[in-house]
Amino acid sequence: MPEMESVETVGATSRGSKLSKFTIQRNTCGPDDVTIDIKYCGICHTDVHFARDPLPMPVPFPLVPGHEVAGVVSKVGKNVKDIKVGDYAGVGCFVDSCFECRPCKTGDENGCDKMATFTFGGQCATHGRIATDSGHTQGGYSKRMTVHRHFAIQIPKTYSLQAAGPIFCSGITMYTPLKQWGALKGGMNVGVVGIGGLGQMGIMLAAAMGNTVTAISRNTTKKEAALKIGAKSFIVSKDEEQMKSATRSLDLILNTVSANHQLSTYLPLLAFKGRIVQIGLTTEPHQVAQVPMIMGMTTITGTAAGGLADTQECMDFCAKNNIVPETELVDWTKIDDVYDELNKGSDKVVRYVLDCDKGF
Amino acid sequence: MPEMESVETVGATSRGSKLSKFTIQRNTCGPDDVTIDIKYCGICHTDVHFARDPLPMPVPFPLVPGHEVAGVVSKVGKNVKDIKVGDYAGVGCFVDSCFECRPCKTGDENGCDKMATFTFGGQCATHGRIATDSGHTQGGYSKRMTVHRHFAIQIPKTYSLQAAGPIFCSGITMYTPLKQWGALKGGMNVGVVGIGGLGQMGIMLAAAMGNTVTAISRNTTKKEAALKIGAKSFIVSKDEEQMKSATRSLDLILNTVSANHQLSTYLPLLAFKGRIVQIGLTTEPHQVAQVPMIMGMTTITGTAAGGLADTQECMDFCAKNNIVPETELVDWTKIDDVYDELNKGSDKVVRYVLDCDKGF
Repeated sequence: MPEMESVETVGATSRGSKLSKFTIQRNTCGPDDVTIDIKYCGICHTDVHFARDPLPMPVPFPLVPGHEVAGVVSKVGKNVKDIKVGDYAGVGCFVDSCFECRPCKTGDENGCDKMATFTFGGQCATHGRIATDSGHTQGGYSKRMTVHRHFAIQIPKTYSLQAAGPIFCSGITMYTPLKQWGALKGGMNVGVVGIGGLGQMGIMLAAAMGNTVTAISRNTTKKEAALKIGAKSFIVSKDEEQMKSATRSLDLILNTVSANHQLSTYLPLLAFKGRIVQIGLTTEPHQVAQVPMIMGMTTITGTAAGGLADTQECMDFCAKNNIVPETELVDWTKIDDVYDELNKGSDKVVRYVLDCDKGF
Repeated sequence: MPEMESVETVGATSRGSKLSKFTIQRNTCGPDDVTIDIKYCGICHTDVHFARDPLPMPVPFPLVPGHEVAGVVSKVGKNVKDIKVGDYAGVGCFVDSCFECRPCKTGDENGCDKMATFTFGGQCATHGRIATDSGHTQGGYSKRMTVHRHFAIQIPKTYSLQAAGPIFCSGITMYTPLKQWGALKGGMNVGVVGIGGLGQMGIMLAAAMGNTVTAISRNTTKKEAALKIGAKSFIVSKDEEQMKSATRSLDLILNTVSANHQLSTYLPLLAFKGRIVQIGLTTEPHQVAQVPMIMGMTTITGTAAGGLADTQECMDFCAKNNIVPETELVDWTKIDDVYDELNKGSDKVVRYVLDCDKGF
């Protein structure tokens, strides 16, 4: 069991409780670890789900949310040679995995056969590289975090530390399918459905890779924002004429819709050999017809987060191409209000970021 | 309009009629064409559907089925430099396409935006390189056929001409997804569901590429045959224990089942990032759950036939690796009996081949 130290955090003491300050014990820096003094932590809708909602799996409390961590390295273990004190670094969705299975060995830690440990609410004992007094992982609404080098992402000094956190969540979630399905080299017609946090990253990344991006949304509320960040065209999914005119036009669709829907709405937009990637955790099954899929050689797939090497690649790509999510800093006392707003479904395109540097 | 000549054929004069001999007019050899004196033509279940069954699209009669054509080149146009008189050559599913659209230009003629012309029952006028007196294409139950060089497949002289036809149908249908989804370089765990004509080709091709093949069937009837042609293991899909023990074990599943079924039967067999390729023209929609697809990053796709360059590649691969479908020659007077047997669902693993050389 690694040694532990006290760290100030903000979290929920029970499901749905108002967020409050408390101190936890978490592991100190071992020989293969990196300690990050956290400056900022992005606030993601997943945080809200874990802290407030009944979920299909048990969620342990007290819970410190936050998996979009960005800060400054304050300590490195003796075996760590490629990150030094003073560097910018961050942590995303995962803080541990088995390192032994095929997904782990091929850069897909997110698909670890023994399940990668989520940055908060995961069981420390599963892989053993993280320790807390509660036995479950605690996230980035916190002053400090220590992880194995493998799970630390380097943030270029040229990049806004405040904006880096979302890259490790929405950024990598969109980067992974773009890379996997051939959009990294550009030249594809890419559709992005839903213009929330994920969709915006999808548009910016796909456009920067050299693809022609079509934004697709239920209404025109975010049309201007979508065109501003790189979409070449905009389709209102409820407008039958607009949808019809886009038939067979897209090589790749990233569908970020998390409300229940039918895939059949978007499948006609796919070109021959086109692919649609489902990203939202919807619960209602899709009715999929086989004949058009066969004749069009179309593909339906899904994706969740991404591997660590890809996350670093995504960070570097964003820095190189000046892809910076729009963020707004909030004080810890405002987190509950942000959660309320996220639950209502905000029309804003801004990502809220907790100011950990200011203190709790 | 190309010049035409009289050719002896065997076909159906109306839907469901007994097959009979008649003479048709079909195009002679133009400057870009190749004329093949047909020696053999494989008899495929698709022939039966077109000749006998009510289909969702209109089928023109009189109809000469046959899209697994193999013979000897008897004439080449002046622009054709890479095939000469006396060579072995064949024709598969398509005899024309637009040559202009992206699928055509990237070797996916089967996905031609204006629809590739099927070897029989297709409209000659769509692309204009084929002509018949009836205005629709006529297939390989025939003494002679002339196609544009692009649609002629060279058959190595070392290969059994009698066995070549099925390569252009079941062979390419299985080769295409194996190539598309990474099995050509070997090392994958490949499942083949259904051990009919398609499944057998799938097993032989996947094994010859260096993959570990699991055959999956409703019962053990074809177990011995499957293991003999290259499967390393065999799963009875109705046996829950056997299916459970194979959970997450396969990287790629080629599902040849053409009866209605639910994809959910096979999806649990997929490893992380595994793919299932649907091949049968089933009509009942599949119920697809999104969460496991996302967490497993699994892929559902479909495929039909394949492009011309890939068909040549598949032919050459089969010749090089001695992949020879088991065939049985039949006289034209026996075609109706073969159709009856195919409709009953034969337990045999043999492919019936019409002896065109013997004459009608």
